[in-house]
Amino acid sequence: MPAYLDAGLLSPVRAGTDVEAAVGDGAWLQAMLDAEAALARAQAACGTVPAAAAKAITAAARADLLDLRQLALAARETANPVVGLVKALTAVVAQRSPQAAEYVHRGSTSQDVLDTGAMLVAARALRLILADLHATADALKDLAAEHRGTVMAGRTLALHAVPTTFGLKAAGWRQLVLDAAGRLQRVADGGLPVALGGAAGTLAGYLQYAGEGADPATVLEELGAAFAAETGLAAPVLPWHALRTPVADLAAALAHTTGALGKIAADVLVLTRTEIGEVGEPAIAGRGASSAMPHKQNPVLATLIRSAALQVPALAGVLTQLMTAEDERSAGMWHAEWQPLREALRLTGGAAHTAVELAGGLTVRPQRMRANLAATGGQLLTERISAHLAPRIGKTAAKDLLTQASLVAATTGRPLADVLAELPQLAGILTRAEATRLLDADGYLGAAHALVDRALHTPSPPAPRNGPGTPHTQDP
Amino acid sequence: MPAYLDAGLLSPVRAGTDVEAAVGDGAWLQAMLDAEAALARAQAACGTVPAAAAKAITAAARADLLDLRQLALAARETANPVVGLVKALTAVVAQRSPQAAEYVHRGSTSQDVLDTGAMLVAARALRLILADLHATADALKDLAAEHRGTVMAGRTLALHAVPTTFGLKAAGWRQLVLDAAGRLQRVADGGLPVALGGAAGTLAGYLQYAGEGADPATVLEELGAAFAAETGLAAPVLPWHALRTPVADLAAALAHTTGALGKIAADVLVLTRTEIGEVGEPAIAGRGASSAMPHKQNPVLATLIRSAALQVPALAGVLTQLMTAEDERSAGMWHAEWQPLREALRLTGGAAHTAVELAGGLTVRPQRMRANLAATGGQLLTERISAHLAPRIGKTAAKDLLTQASLVAATTGRPLADVLAELPQLAGILTRAEATRLLDADGYLGAAHALVDRALHTPSPPAPRNGPGTPHTQDP
Amino acid sequence: MPAYLDAGLLSPVRAGTDVEAAVGDGAWLQAMLDAEAALARAQAACGTVPAAAAKAITAAARADLLDLRQLALAARETANPVVGLVKALTAVVAQRSPQAAEYVHRGSTSQDVLDTGAMLVAARALRLILADLHATADALKDLAAEHRGTVMAGRTLALHAVPTTFGLKAAGWRQLVLDAAGRLQRVADGGLPVALGGAAGTLAGYLQYAGEGADPATVLEELGAAFAAETGLAAPVLPWHALRTPVADLAAALAHTTGALGKIAADVLVLTRTEIGEVGEPAIAGRGASSAMPHKQNPVLATLIRSAALQVPALAGVLTQLMTAEDERSAGMWHAEWQPLREALRLTGGAAHTAVELAGGLTVRPQRMRANLAATGGQLLTERISAHLAPRIGKTAAKDLLTQASLVAATTGRPLADVLAELPQLAGILTRAEATRLLDADGYLGAAHALVDRALHTPSPPAPRNGPGTPHTQDP
Amino acid sequence: MPAYLDAGLLSPVRAGTDVEAAVGDGAWLQAMLDAEAALARAQAACGTVPAAAAKAITAAARADLLDLRQLALAARETANPVVGLVKALTAVVAQRSPQAAEYVHRGSTSQDVLDTGAMLVAARALRLILADLHATADALKDLAAEHRGTVMAGRTLALHAVPTTFGLKAAGWRQLVLDAAGRLQRVADGGLPVALGGAAGTLAGYLQYAGEGADPATVLEELGAAFAAETGLAAPVLPWHALRTPVADLAAALAHTTGALGKIAADVLVLTRTEIGEVGEPAIAGRGASSAMPHKQNPVLATLIRSAALQVPALAGVLTQLMTAEDERSAGMWHAEWQPLREALRLTGGAAHTAVELAGGLTVRPQRMRANLAATGGQLLTERISAHLAPRIGKTAAKDLLTQASLVAATTGRPLADVLAELPQLAGILTRAEATRLLDADGYLGAAHALVDRALHTPSPPAPRNGPGTPHTQDP
Repeated sequence: MPAYLDAGLLSPVRAGTDVEAAVGDGAWLQAMLDAEAALARAQAACGTVPAAAAKAITAAARADLLDLRQLALAARETANPVVGLVKALTAVVAQRSPQAAEYVHRGSTSQDVLDTGAMLVAARALRLILADLHATADALKDLAAEHRGTVMAGRTLALHAVPTTFGLKAAGWRQLVLDAAGRLQRVADGGLPVALGGAAGTLAGYLQYAGEGADPATVLEELGAAFAAETGLAAPVLPWHALRTPVADLAAALAHTTGALGKIAADVLVLTRTEIGEVGEPAIAGRGASSAMPHKQNPVLATLIRSAALQVPALAGVLTQLMTAEDERSAGMWHAEWQPLREALRLTGGAAHTAVELAGGLTVRPQRMRANLAATGGQLLTERISAHLAPRIGKTAAKDLLTQASLVAATTGRPLADVLAELPQLAGILTRAEATRLLDADGYLGAAHALVDRALHTPSPPAPRNGPGTPHTQDP
Repeated sequence: MPAYLDAGLLSPVRAGTDVEAAVGDGAWLQAMLDAEAALARAQAACGTVPAAAAKAITAAARADLLDLRQLALAARETANPVVGLVKALTAVVAQRSPQAAEYVHRGSTSQDVLDTGAMLVAARALRLILADLHATADALKDLAAEHRGTVMAGRTLALHAVPTTFGLKAAGWRQLVLDAAGRLQRVADGGLPVALGGAAGTLAGYLQYAGEGADPATVLEELGAAFAAETGLAAPVLPWHALRTPVADLAAALAHTTGALGKIAADVLVLTRTEIGEVGEPAIAGRGASSAMPHKQNPVLATLIRSAALQVPALAGVLTQLMTAEDERSAGMWHAEWQPLREALRLTGGAAHTAVELAGGLTVRPQRMRANLAATGGQLLTERISAHLAPRIGKTAAKDLLTQASLVAATTGRPLADVLAELPQLAGILTRAEATRLLDADGYLGAAHALVDRALHTPSPPAPRNGPGTPHTQDP
Repeated sequence: MPAYLDAGLLSPVRAGTDVEAAVGDGAWLQAMLDAEAALARAQAACGTVPAAAAKAITAAARADLLDLRQLALAARETANPVVGLVKALTAVVAQRSPQAAEYVHRGSTSQDVLDTGAMLVAARALRLILADLHATADALKDLAAEHRGTVMAGRTLALHAVPTTFGLKAAGWRQLVLDAAGRLQRVADGGLPVALGGAAGTLAGYLQYAGEGADPATVLEELGAAFAAETGLAAPVLPWHALRTPVADLAAALAHTTGALGKIAADVLVLTRTEIGEVGEPAIAGRGASSAMPHKQNPVLATLIRSAALQVPALAGVLTQLMTAEDERSAGMWHAEWQPLREALRLTGGAAHTAVELAGGLTVRPQRMRANLAATGGQLLTERISAHLAPRIGKTAAKDLLTQASLVAATTGRPLADVLAELPQLAGILTRAEATRLLDADGYLGAAHALVDRALHTPSPPAPRNGPGTPHTQDP
Repeated sequence: MPAYLDAGLLSPVRAGTDVEAAVGDGAWLQAMLDAEAALARAQAACGTVPAAAAKAITAAARADLLDLRQLALAARETANPVVGLVKALTAVVAQRSPQAAEYVHRGSTSQDVLDTGAMLVAARALRLILADLHATADALKDLAAEHRGTVMAGRTLALHAVPTTFGLKAAGWRQLVLDAAGRLQRVADGGLPVALGGAAGTLAGYLQYAGEGADPATVLEELGAAFAAETGLAAPVLPWHALRTPVADLAAALAHTTGALGKIAADVLVLTRTEIGEVGEPAIAGRGASSAMPHKQNPVLATLIRSAALQVPALAGVLTQLMTAEDERSAGMWHAEWQPLREALRLTGGAAHTAVELAGGLTVRPQRMRANLAATGGQLLTERISAHLAPRIGKTAAKDLLTQASLVAATTGRPLADVLAELPQLAGILTRAEATRLLDADGYLGAAHALVDRALHTPSPPAPRNGPGTPHTQDP
């Protein structure tokens, strides 16, 4: 058992998920090799590298031919893993074709390769995450539709407020998920660019190899377009070694996503509480078991999602802070990006994966909702009575009266309708029958149904298009 | 001097700026009053409040008629300032029209008013910030154009890398500023919605007052549209009391903005260093004075901008984390938003205000850039020599040779061309004349000019449209 | 109403508290003036400033004689408020004694004054916060003692676990509060030093004025000791302009404090939920009112505390990050400290102030606890049954049996004892009487009582000693 | 190549370090097994588990006998890895002794095992980190002593301020490292407790197995003491499942450490800049190589340290925020701790490891310091001239005069002494000879030497005692 396993022992939210594999060290290494290969092919397309060399480099750019651990250790000498990677890749190519080896990483710089690799990793991870968000949104749409009329207590500041419906709650969850998916999709569609700057962002090395007579503007356009085409990534306006908009945008969208999923988890945890019991996580044998207490079915899916939601915003904050990188390339700020970016991707992906299961299998208990609603004897309808009385006795008097009556009802445990019916101030103004009618939760749902209808008609963003980030480890 | 002044003593980056005034307690109070007035007018437009009452409420909704400090103190009793505000506003209206007083805050809830007020504050602040970002971008465009051909050392990992131009650096700064402006504009254009949910997000209170026969879907659409029209804000799909996308989006865009401006400040601070001296802040009498050292002209504008850039990402992180609010309205998460949001707005606004002055007045010293370039005897051109030699002696041999020659040049202080010309390995391969030509920085600018041209043709985002957030303190 | 009021409208947790006043702009200005005056007196004690001048400077060092807003605005020119403060203070002194004016800020630098002022502000705020923490701990001690035997459901992962006591919960809260107080006290006792470095941390300016023959080591010791004595602050080993341990320590202790108080708030919010109802906040007329719903008594104290606890860790994170300040004094990192430090102090102080009231007035409802315990028919004792059966049928078999029986009990709503008594596998092993006895929560409290006893015997840290930070605005 | 390798590819600061191995998944698993074994031995010491069973459990508690990946995958079902670990460990024990298997995890709960394991991991990592901090401090002490008299420009707000010495700078770095070591040592000495609470913090399960007649207070004391003794960890006052002081303290000390090391890195990066060149990282063949530019010797050690310093405060912020865990055990907050804690430990450890090399091999260039000092023609001594003139012409006049003279000197490039000597206002007041003498940097070092002497006499904290956290995987 090597010391450098990360099996997910401390991060079960993503253990074993596809996104974990898509952003692991091996995947990252492959993505950087894909970048080297795509660069060679792009240069071949521009005529500055022989096609045969590009083909040989592409064939050799396989992570399984390199020693990942040695590359990681060597990275301490140069502060990034690309210097060693270039050396190792060159050696592999040279075994097959010494001539082709001359064309590895030609005119390039470490950051072009690592950043392009990072964008490929992100593109691949986003595709997985977006698919899970769409599956989650679909499941929530079904929940919202099914429970459009399921009445429950609205809760504010921890207390029963006025009634709402579970359909509206689920529709709100879905709306947040769609918000997140929209932000991620915006990043996926054009927000993940290739890095192509050379040593200090002028592409001078690339141009030197293109020949001194080459027109810089032409090479810039053609090489950029070819590199983007080969990777499936976007072509940026300027080299972004020290202009970190792509990373900041990605970070913000990931934090938005765990925020959205974390909101769902927070609600599920409240509604799962023993005393509330209005929802339950999907019951699967062994799921939610405690090491101590046989009776427990812990809400593990919500717990896992919440654990991710508590970490990602801080990681995103690190990435955003790193926008202030000095110089053409920073000494340290760039290097601080890699691990938080990977961690944010896999925590978000793990949360999305978990959310699919949670949303798809959630048990909803309308009878328990009804029972909880009834438990306060109608108190959560005081706003309605107040609105009813306001035109009759003034809004301030109405509110004061209801505050006092609620206190009496709460203290004595009597139904609010009874308390109200006996109030001398309301004699001739509010009959017991009227009070009883007004205190019926089903009659005070406001626009809950209309809101669900409106929300469910909000179209989901289009499914992620295929393309960006498809691995290029084979011949083009 | 009241204990509750915040004169900006500890935050000079925003002291005295327009944005400071636009987000202060007084402005926030007025925005909440604007929300109450707009709500009354919207209800009047829908026929559920008499037009005269809406007019009276609008006339009374003036911050100068209320006691700000008393409202703040009263907020401790209810955890938000709206309960007290409604009471106080009702009293002011009642003095003029007891009937109208009945219609204050009708069917509404604290969060509708505070959130709508917050969006109005944000809209007003964003207008100021966007104007400053556009002015900054314009100044940077001029700098980039003027210095399209001003050669300087590119710097990576704190050391001279290959040459670049100051024009390219300025174009990169501008690109980041445009990125930020684009993200803020996206929020300003439709991302700042009214809050209209009532006690638990069903609009039940509003509907109750609309009359029991009213069609919920119709009231929902009409009241929402009218409230949006009266405030100039957007109409949301769902009430967002606990769906905090608007706040998270705003936070992300503000952090992006201080990230962009902070990058400029970081570069200015490097280039201002005594030993580098390539740029200088605008020289104004007294500006940058030290309390101890008469000779200093401290780079205070960059310092102020950096001070903001070091704070805003953390505030944005708080706001993003708060997306995980539980229930229909959270006990504490919502309440934690207000101060960080205000602080993020005014720090960003202060940084943008400061950036206008910095970008517009920056002194650039091409001769100093030229002198610094020359100081290492051509070493920063080794990449070019290496590329020149690679096809002749192989890329690895070339790189090794240059590494050794650079070390000799650095140790002995001799020009690199001399060292190279004497190397036996290069006899017949690289003449002194060739070496001298290749070591000329002006000949190794890559696509710097083409990049500047491309970047400066990137259109700025359209200027912010007028409209959202215009104060409504007068009759409509 | 000036635009630069901060009345606490957006931060009710601290509105009107003593700590708010102790850290406001006015208090900060006074503290910096106290630092100038103490420095002059210290120099007088060392013989490098005439006693009369020190006296005159001390007499003039009054915030009410200066224009706070003008100082804040002037700070934009120099990136800190001290340059303007020195000018203004000099003018005030000069009106009274032109000779004395020569001795203002003699040999000093902005950061010495601002940092010493900040430490004075912190010392004064800590005294208030510590007093409130001790009052909170005392109230929690009473609660723990009173409810040493009050049985309630332990809750883990949102569900009933095994029984515990409210006394143990309150003892745990107190322990955290004592932890926080201990960390703050450690900072207060020696962790808040004067700043005495001069322009670049060598004290050269101070020594220059001490005369060229003065022995540096002697002046260093004597002046440092005198300055510390005059301010009541500690004397540091080295000037700490760019060695920010004092600020980082303070930040960590403040975040620990809101973490501790935030834990209490989180628990109170859970236990206050309508369906749980085991505790209630102190009932005071108008407290906790909703602007919409007459029946609500919102848990506003816990809400306010939580709002602070959600902000302070991020502010502390900013302050910790700023330890990496470059050079002898940083351009921007220092400037980013002031506002987060003040905000962290007043949020923590507000939370502590609020906690006193919450802990002192909390209503505890043992009957409701008992009822909630009973609601699951004994399920939360399955661990005990399992332990009872394990030696008899094996631990795995015991646990599996209990898991199944719990599921049956939960599904059918029958008491667990009944379900168990009918299980054929337990015939002859567990009688109904035994099951009933084992399912009695009072018999399964483990060491709860002993833990309370042990915790309550943990002595509180000593009350804060008087001294550090007493304002020196009068003659010594 | 399994997908779940973490070879350090993205985090070279810790790749291959001892601390990386000490906190990896394998080490964490072993630590949890150590906790299980120690618990069994402790129970044996108290007579509630047979000694033979404890021995068998200890013998079986070896990570290499379990399938790490399977445990990680299984953790998704229960939200933590302990449920699966107990099952797997029980199976291993049962193969050897079915009787002993009955005593695995007896009376315990997942969090007791995971938290105790985490404290063991932390104790082991802290020992490594502390050793590296002490080695770093020793190297810095040597640097400070050697360069006690090496004069260099003090730098503030990016500009030359007054002179200082490199010895004072190194002494300051050392002081910060000692501050950090002190804070970590405080945590290591008593701040890392065993977790012993059972299902809900009452130890009921442990007591149940101790027999119903056992005195809770006695078992509490004895079992706690025995568990602490077996693990080498501290015994806490109360179970800390939801009282997270140990984690928060650890987080704060780790962030302090990377703050201290990050300050050193920031300074090294400034002083390494091509134009400044006052220090250099240890020159080792291949170290600091660029993938593009042969001439570069990048400051990779400082870069790596800075990359850690930019990440750890945010991770510490997450951990501090998690203090607000609800209930007896939280659903999600606890689960969010593990990965940030491990990451903070290994980033800090990697930074400390790197700092040993940086501090021990730093090249200091006194001649370059001297040359940089001279480059501004004496301007950085204006404070001294000002102090000299103040008693003669008044401090304001003196400062104004110097400001103007500095501007003239800077603009014309003439030495300040010349400019001053020609000023009519100073005729008869300051001769050229006096000016020249006063502008000698060596004469204006203030108390720099005395400060170095004082700082170097500050004793290092005692070396970490051996003991806590020694693995207990063998028979006791």
